[in-house]
Amino acid sequence: MLLIGFYIAITAEAMTAALAAGRRNMDWFGVCLIACVTALGGGTMRDILLDHYPLVWVANPYVLLLVCGAALLTIPLARLVERLRWPFLLLDALGLVVFTVIGCNIGIEAGVHPIIVIVAGMVTGTAGGILRDVLCNDIPLIFQGELYASVSMIAGIVYYLGLTGGVQQDLMAILAMVLGFALRVLAIAFKWEMPKFVYDRNMRR
Amino acid sequence: MLLIGFYIAITAEAMTAALAAGRRNMDWFGVCLIACVTALGGGTMRDILLDHYPLVWVANPYVLLLVCGAALLTIPLARLVERLRWPFLLLDALGLVVFTVIGCNIGIEAGVHPIIVIVAGMVTGTAGGILRDVLCNDIPLIFQGELYASVSMIAGIVYYLGLTGGVQQDLMAILAMVLGFALRVLAIAFKWEMPKFVYDRNMRR
Amino acid sequence: MLLIGFYIAITAEAMTAALAAGRRNMDWFGVCLIACVTALGGGTMRDILLDHYPLVWVANPYVLLLVCGAALLTIPLARLVERLRWPFLLLDALGLVVFTVIGCNIGIEAGVHPIIVIVAGMVTGTAGGILRDVLCNDIPLIFQGELYASVSMIAGIVYYLGLTGGVQQDLMAILAMVLGFALRVLAIAFKWEMPKFVYDRNMRR
Repeated sequence: MLLIGFYIAITAEAMTAALAAGRRNMDWFGVCLIACVTALGGGTMRDILLDHYPLVWVANPYVLLLVCGAALLTIPLARLVERLRWPFLLLDALGLVVFTVIGCNIGIEAGVHPIIVIVAGMVTGTAGGILRDVLCNDIPLIFQGELYASVSMIAGIVYYLGLTGGVQQDLMAILAMVLGFALRVLAIAFKWEMPKFVYDRNMRR
Repeated sequence: MLLIGFYIAITAEAMTAALAAGRRNMDWFGVCLIACVTALGGGTMRDILLDHYPLVWVANPYVLLLVCGAALLTIPLARLVERLRWPFLLLDALGLVVFTVIGCNIGIEAGVHPIIVIVAGMVTGTAGGILRDVLCNDIPLIFQGELYASVSMIAGIVYYLGLTGGVQQDLMAILAMVLGFALRVLAIAFKWEMPKFVYDRNMRR
Repeated sequence: MLLIGFYIAITAEAMTAALAAGRRNMDWFGVCLIACVTALGGGTMRDILLDHYPLVWVANPYVLLLVCGAALLTIPLARLVERLRWPFLLLDALGLVVFTVIGCNIGIEAGVHPIIVIVAGMVTGTAGGILRDVLCNDIPLIFQGELYASVSMIAGIVYYLGLTGGVQQDLMAILAMVLGFALRVLAIAFKWEMPKFVYDRNMRR
């Protein structure tokens, strides 16, 4: 079940990433690279930080083909993909919670401290988007007040606490994902935002 | 002693990083992430390059809490932190030399070539600030002429030569840190700068 | 032979990277760092992704000295280096194909899937330039339509297919490099470009 969610999520991430690349007039190779980094970068960064090898896409390179294929398919379908804004926001929210739960699972398998389990979930869920924004030369979107990383953190904490409390793993994964998904959708619908730290006096490093 | 310096340094780095995030109107999560990357990114990059696992903050996740706590505490105290410019420049200089010596020690333990020992010290001391500037979408400050990486390099070389010359490790660490700290403070006070390479004719890649 | 090509290539990469740093008025340390990242970043990223340690420059730190030396030498010679635009474009094309073949070899040694062998070649050939552009705060040049990554991909595929077809390794390396080099030079001479994906309607993430 997580695997199906994973494939849906990386496909959706690849398609929205391709649009971001298109808005910067990148060539087809750039479109594929931005899509791979966005869809697979979070898991890659988590695995590098935890020394968890081989990486997902090295062990199973067909995910690279899936991601590049989805990204290239987006080019002729750009207008359609844009019109499907809500479905893609929902798929993106699905991706966030699926990635988070997968990341937590890998942290648990690696036997790390609970805090790092949650961090592994958050890195998996959010680092892809951060890397995309760095390559596209933006200040990462995720820092601009949207409830995104916080949703990942909450889903991860609930998931981990549930497992520790003895809930069966598949059930707990579903519960955490439903909760995180609902939270993310509500945050988009009602424009819930995180408080920002606005500070404009200059201070030399 | 190095450990105490390490905790002071990451706290100070977290607080100045939080101000940098605040100047870009980031949300609380962005503030924490920038603080973690700045305070812990240098050591993390060194450990990834040297294949030295587990990472410091994976083995001891409480440093993450310390860094995030210091960063969030900076938000209500921003004006105060700014007024304390000199103390923070001193703490930053302390962090630079502490990180450098810690990095050199890890290089020595890993049994790498002396050149790489120095590089490990420099990466530990400077990569956090570079990653912060990349995430904040700036050209890294460190390349703008300040004596920063060079101080790290000199402190690392002196430290390594001293150890090879048979000086006792703790003593040599203190000597190298005092030298580097003095050099950095003098460089700030007298605005010593590295020569720049200014070149403005265009050449296509 | 590959080794000689490798040394020529990293020297040339270091010198063009130094010019890029000079155009951003970086100090000498920045010049060295940009040169190291450009010349050695592709191989470093490949080795981190494949968990292939120690890194080239950790095992043989003299390449760091070579790269920094070439970069610093570029400062007094900037005008000359710029006038030598064609030789440097040729050296850069040589570097691209040499890096690609070296990367494929390391992928083959590591026993990864053929797709990942090609990817290892492409990462080795192109990631250095991408990292340079990220540090210089540009949108990576490589995504702007030039046939660069595609040349690396084609050379890698031809090389791998040749090896699988039983061609002797050194011969096949030469063939793949001559092909890739010719393709790259023709692409520059005739301004062949990859199609771009231009898309300017706004879509929120």
